[in-house]
Amino acid sequence: MAIIVQKYGGSSVADAERIKRVAERIVAARKAGHEVVVVVSAMGDTTDELLDLASQVSPVPPGRELDMLLTAGERISMALLAMAITNLGFEARSYTGSQAGVLTTSAHGRARIIDVTPGRLRGALDEGAIAIVAGFQGVSQDTKDITTLGRGGSDTTAVALAAALKADVCEIYTDVDGVFTADPRIVPNARKIDQVTYEEMLEMAACGAKVLMLRCVEYARRSRIPIHVRSSYSQKPGTMVTGAMEDLALEQALITGVAHDRSEAKITIVGVPDEPGIAAQIFQTVAGAEINLDMIVQNVSTEGTGRTDISFTLPKADGPTAMAALNKASDLIKFKTLLYDDHIGKVSLIGAGMRSHPGVAAKFFAALGQAGLNIEMISTSEIRVSVVCRDTDLDAAVRAVHDAFELGGDEEAVVYAGTGR
Amino acid sequence: MAIIVQKYGGSSVADAERIKRVAERIVAARKAGHEVVVVVSAMGDTTDELLDLASQVSPVPPGRELDMLLTAGERISMALLAMAITNLGFEARSYTGSQAGVLTTSAHGRARIIDVTPGRLRGALDEGAIAIVAGFQGVSQDTKDITTLGRGGSDTTAVALAAALKADVCEIYTDVDGVFTADPRIVPNARKIDQVTYEEMLEMAACGAKVLMLRCVEYARRSRIPIHVRSSYSQKPGTMVTGAMEDLALEQALITGVAHDRSEAKITIVGVPDEPGIAAQIFQTVAGAEINLDMIVQNVSTEGTGRTDISFTLPKADGPTAMAALNKASDLIKFKTLLYDDHIGKVSLIGAGMRSHPGVAAKFFAALGQAGLNIEMISTSEIRVSVVCRDTDLDAAVRAVHDAFELGGDEEAVVYAGTGR
Repeated sequence: MAIIVQKYGGSSVADAERIKRVAERIVAARKAGHEVVVVVSAMGDTTDELLDLASQVSPVPPGRELDMLLTAGERISMALLAMAITNLGFEARSYTGSQAGVLTTSAHGRARIIDVTPGRLRGALDEGAIAIVAGFQGVSQDTKDITTLGRGGSDTTAVALAAALKADVCEIYTDVDGVFTADPRIVPNARKIDQVTYEEMLEMAACGAKVLMLRCVEYARRSRIPIHVRSSYSQKPGTMVTGAMEDLALEQALITGVAHDRSEAKITIVGVPDEPGIAAQIFQTVAGAEINLDMIVQNVSTEGTGRTDISFTLPKADGPTAMAALNKASDLIKFKTLLYDDHIGKVSLIGAGMRSHPGVAAKFFAALGQAGLNIEMISTSEIRVSVVCRDTDLDAAVRAVHDAFELGGDEEAVVYAGTGR
Repeated sequence: MAIIVQKYGGSSVADAERIKRVAERIVAARKAGHEVVVVVSAMGDTTDELLDLASQVSPVPPGRELDMLLTAGERISMALLAMAITNLGFEARSYTGSQAGVLTTSAHGRARIIDVTPGRLRGALDEGAIAIVAGFQGVSQDTKDITTLGRGGSDTTAVALAAALKADVCEIYTDVDGVFTADPRIVPNARKIDQVTYEEMLEMAACGAKVLMLRCVEYARRSRIPIHVRSSYSQKPGTMVTGAMEDLALEQALITGVAHDRSEAKITIVGVPDEPGIAAQIFQTVAGAEINLDMIVQNVSTEGTGRTDISFTLPKADGPTAMAALNKASDLIKFKTLLYDDHIGKVSLIGAGMRSHPGVAAKFFAALGQAGLNIEMISTSEIRVSVVCRDTDLDAAVRAVHDAFELGGDEEAVVYAGTGR
């Protein structure tokens, strides 16, 4: 008998029919003799509808109240799911994040899990019940106020509960069959990956692969919980995200896949004095505005001028804040101009195998060159190569790299609609 | 500076515009220097929509999960109301029933309040904030599960919080101007009552006046909290429900008003043996099915037969259960037939003054007789006379009694649409 944590996203519970189908799937796992804990997101568009209501009463709703409002979404879906399971003859009890013991920081809208005290869940399992838990939410350890975890929060809830309950696996049900070698909407013959390491999955997530959020994979890696990403529409096995390199078989593929990201913008600071401490000044300014930078490139100093240019990428949503912070600091940084460009795309090749195969980066750049694509910025890690290009070139870049490394399968990938939270 | 508890029903917060209007009203009380706690119901049709969803996933949803589901309704309205108040420049914090310290029995769907521990609310008031509390809900003292209080629950929440916080007044905002001498939809010149005792209000509520629920008035009487029933659409004072008889001025009106009730049915048990213990047997049978009886009438034994008929009224919704229970007990009760009649109406005249004026009942029956209306059952208390008639005669009966006691005012009452919970 195993302990299984299953997580279903918003599109999997979008209406009564889908909730009933998910209930059958949960009951099947219970019938197979497992102890089952289910984490569920809000139904389909509920969150957007609640946000719309909030905007009608207040232009800047306070974070505490916005969290109180949004958590009504999971309350509805989890109660309905528990009812549907009960109707199939199995006992199910729903728990809010607070009742499930999800203790967080008090940063409303982007709280982090501090601790999980799953006493009530353990009790429910001991009595033979299926426990249904609201994803995406918790309770502040300090203020006892209701909090939400921000984007990808339900996945993180699932992994955190799996860790606290020492579960055998955390199954993340989604609307795709697993993690693919590239986005099947761009590369029709993209192949489902059977197994991937936490490290590779972290790079994939950081580079724009949307199927799992970074913090959920981080949490799983720290607590050594295997994640099984799979489709709620089929019975096929999905992608297993497990242990570090050394745990995997030797025949591990050289390359995991190609990720892409359209969500970033680029800021270039032109004519910065080429002096020690200036780069630190710039990045302290941006970090002070609570913005996470991604790629950073500094040009060689233009001869004779004593000045250089520094470019970095950041989430588009943070662009205006960063520009304002830099403009405000112009006395300190003494740049000539600021350039803002939100028409960029990033393509990344990820694979633990490239650590021991030096030719990978060369082949990657060659593929882009042969496709006639211009490279604007480059960044690498031990198991990743990323470049920034024009956003209009992004799809072609993804296909060129995917083809060059022969990552494709024989059949076309199935693409479903919808997203979860 | 007074402590004021305000309660707004579902129709008062049915959309963003109304929520903003209610927020202004709350802020006005805060600006006047009062400490304000607000109890709010779910928006408009939310509860019906959630019940509809529940019926789509399960024909008989478990009570625990139904309560979890329905409490999402107040969560939404209270968070939106807190946002709207914050937007007006005042601090507001919303609290679930559980957070507000509303401890209940564990009878899902009809929990009773055991205790209120308003520490967090008191803290919020001390810090100058307005506290918004979800009506209709609490947390089970034993199981720590979320509960709902059933019909009229939000009014009861408001009075319970007012008692726990030693509030000066509990204002119940509704869609009518107050308590009327009769339903203005039946009697156009019905008059708003300025002041009424708990005792009279209890009789009014028990006899079908819908503006306040029985248990809320009971709670207010026990804890001596004045209730001010008033309209959320106007600034006019409404009806004050206060102290017992002796606290009121001597010039108190003879009669409070006329109440009516269409929600009851009548069961007649024909040919019961006229023996000691049979009536007890009947009413134990019905009580065993957890049904509350209202009026009970036993005819004089038909001469020579040794048998009699017993009639009683009960909520229509309980009719089928009661009939089944009685049929099942036919061996014990030995009746001849059971008759079920759900085409009855009840009209009641209430007034503390009638205690010392013996002519009231006579005048009441005379008014009905002159209007040509047939009386089927009679029941009286110290401050009330009620009769059962055909449901088709009910409106005429209400008007006849209202006229006979000259209860009408000079102007027509304003009738608004909608109901609260």
